[in-house]
Amino acid sequence: MKAKWYETSGDYGDIVISTRIRLARNLAEYPFPERMSASQRRECENKIKETVLNNGAGISKRFKYLELGLLPQAQVVSLVERHLISPEFAKDNDAKLLLLDDESVSVMINEEDHIRLQVMRSGLDPDGAFELADKLDTLLDEQLHFAFDDNLGYLTACPTNLGTGMRASVMLHLPALQENGSIAQLSSTISKLGLAIRGIYGEGSRPLGAIYQISNQVTLGISEKAAIANLRGIAVQLIAQEKSLREKMVLDERTVDSIWRSYGILTNARMISSDEFMQLISNVRLGVSAGLIDSVSMDTINRLTVNAQAGMISMHEGRDMTAAERDKARAEMIRTALAS
Amino acid sequence: MKAKWYETSGDYGDIVISTRIRLARNLAEYPFPERMSASQRRECENKIKETVLNNGAGISKRFKYLELGLLPQAQVVSLVERHLISPEFAKDNDAKLLLLDDESVSVMINEEDHIRLQVMRSGLDPDGAFELADKLDTLLDEQLHFAFDDNLGYLTACPTNLGTGMRASVMLHLPALQENGSIAQLSSTISKLGLAIRGIYGEGSRPLGAIYQISNQVTLGISEKAAIANLRGIAVQLIAQEKSLREKMVLDERTVDSIWRSYGILTNARMISSDEFMQLISNVRLGVSAGLIDSVSMDTINRLTVNAQAGMISMHEGRDMTAAERDKARAEMIRTALAS
Repeated sequence: MKAKWYETSGDYGDIVISTRIRLARNLAEYPFPERMSASQRRECENKIKETVLNNGAGISKRFKYLELGLLPQAQVVSLVERHLISPEFAKDNDAKLLLLDDESVSVMINEEDHIRLQVMRSGLDPDGAFELADKLDTLLDEQLHFAFDDNLGYLTACPTNLGTGMRASVMLHLPALQENGSIAQLSSTISKLGLAIRGIYGEGSRPLGAIYQISNQVTLGISEKAAIANLRGIAVQLIAQEKSLREKMVLDERTVDSIWRSYGILTNARMISSDEFMQLISNVRLGVSAGLIDSVSMDTINRLTVNAQAGMISMHEGRDMTAAERDKARAEMIRTALAS
Repeated sequence: MKAKWYETSGDYGDIVISTRIRLARNLAEYPFPERMSASQRRECENKIKETVLNNGAGISKRFKYLELGLLPQAQVVSLVERHLISPEFAKDNDAKLLLLDDESVSVMINEEDHIRLQVMRSGLDPDGAFELADKLDTLLDEQLHFAFDDNLGYLTACPTNLGTGMRASVMLHLPALQENGSIAQLSSTISKLGLAIRGIYGEGSRPLGAIYQISNQVTLGISEKAAIANLRGIAVQLIAQEKSLREKMVLDERTVDSIWRSYGILTNARMISSDEFMQLISNVRLGVSAGLIDSVSMDTINRLTVNAQAGMISMHEGRDMTAAERDKARAEMIRTALAS
């Protein structure tokens, strides 16, 4: 089996979990998905499918075509957990998806737009992710006629995507900035620069696992390259701030104690909920990044962060499971992963 | 250094931590300690000291004579923690103690009575403990003239000790009975049989670490042997009940989870308070007794339970320590002990 993109960590892997580029595209000859007839939908689907699978480029052979309605529920949930599809898309029983073998590229067909092309990279790599997205976009553009306006750029179902149709985002682990209470102020600064920061898991001001996403909010009047450079610049600044705070934080014996306790619980517990796991792995991630824990690699943590989610566990076991069953299977998976 | 009595576990070591026999004796020619003059006190002290250290029996060479006022505070605290002296005795700057090399026998001089002779044994061993106490009592009686009344028996400062002057007690780990909520009812049954049960550490109905002590309350109109047989009988019943409940309890996956979490925290934390330690080691003790954890011996747990107390840690480090310093030293001691 091809290794998945999230199984190794990338640049700034101690802080940056992943980078994602998403392009929204529409075929000029069809109405937006919401206004399509059933036959138009089918036609459009087939065109996109054929173009991706048979465009002559080497990469096309690495895509598989998935009909969500035919997949087990656990697998659909796991696609959402891995951010390969949106939660809305998962609810559409008729939805079709194209997925690259290493899961680093997905194409949602007829979600809000005809095409939602996504490229994922581990670590901080908006340039690399955009390069591939752009290459795929060009391949598709050669055979499909994208709705494009010389003044506005790419036309999209929702005006917030008009222009580049691009959303670039970076997922960061920011326990020190969170602990420090700086996120709210950073959020206001970042929004003035046309970006947004938000917690990924859990509600409120202290998201689970201290995992945040920053993404560009502006798609009009700015080139893709400029938006990416902007995002990268902010990310690098956040990383520097997080790093410098971490150095102080890790000198704090309470933090060291809590890192080791988290490690002790993860390597010994027999039942762990998803929420608790996110909190504990956040501490362990910090401990690994600070060099306190050297028996665990960042790759293991990244893989575990994906694999320990509810849908992934059910999929791994090949059946629907109760929450209690998942908590046990999760604890076992964690023990195995951290022992190796 | 001679191994201490608490470094190995004895009969029913998975449930019974220790057995203690205490004899109260007074010299007929002196008033009770509370009413003694300073010179009488000195005279009495010397008589007892000489008798214990020079009675011709082999064991007498193994005693050392300690003046509490000359000991570091941490060492005095640790004597209380090991139940070798009473908290009241520890406050008396002029107090003198005779202590056997393996710390299994202590003689408090001029506490409430002239002589408080104590014998400690690991596990359930009231007969063995009494045998030694009785032997020492006979040795002393040959040279000292004990206050004794043919009708009442040994005369003591407090009438609750009149008669045998003996208090026999057994310290038990009863997490299953505690969890089950049975202790209150057992307490009422036990008191009807002339015994008492009480938690050793912490206040309230759920003492820290689920450690309880049962002891005889009646010293008048009952022989030492009968009192000990009574205590042993009740202890064996409690052990049987605890064992049978544990079998059910350990099947419960929440208990198994909490045992392993406790083990994970103890083997990884960098700061542990005495109270938290007592709770966690109680769970680990249960796990070892149930065969879940096989990397830790009951001996290690018993030794740790004594050594992780505040005074023992300060004494081990050879200096007064703040609570935070002790919490760190304790965590390190626990990690070392459980790793070996």
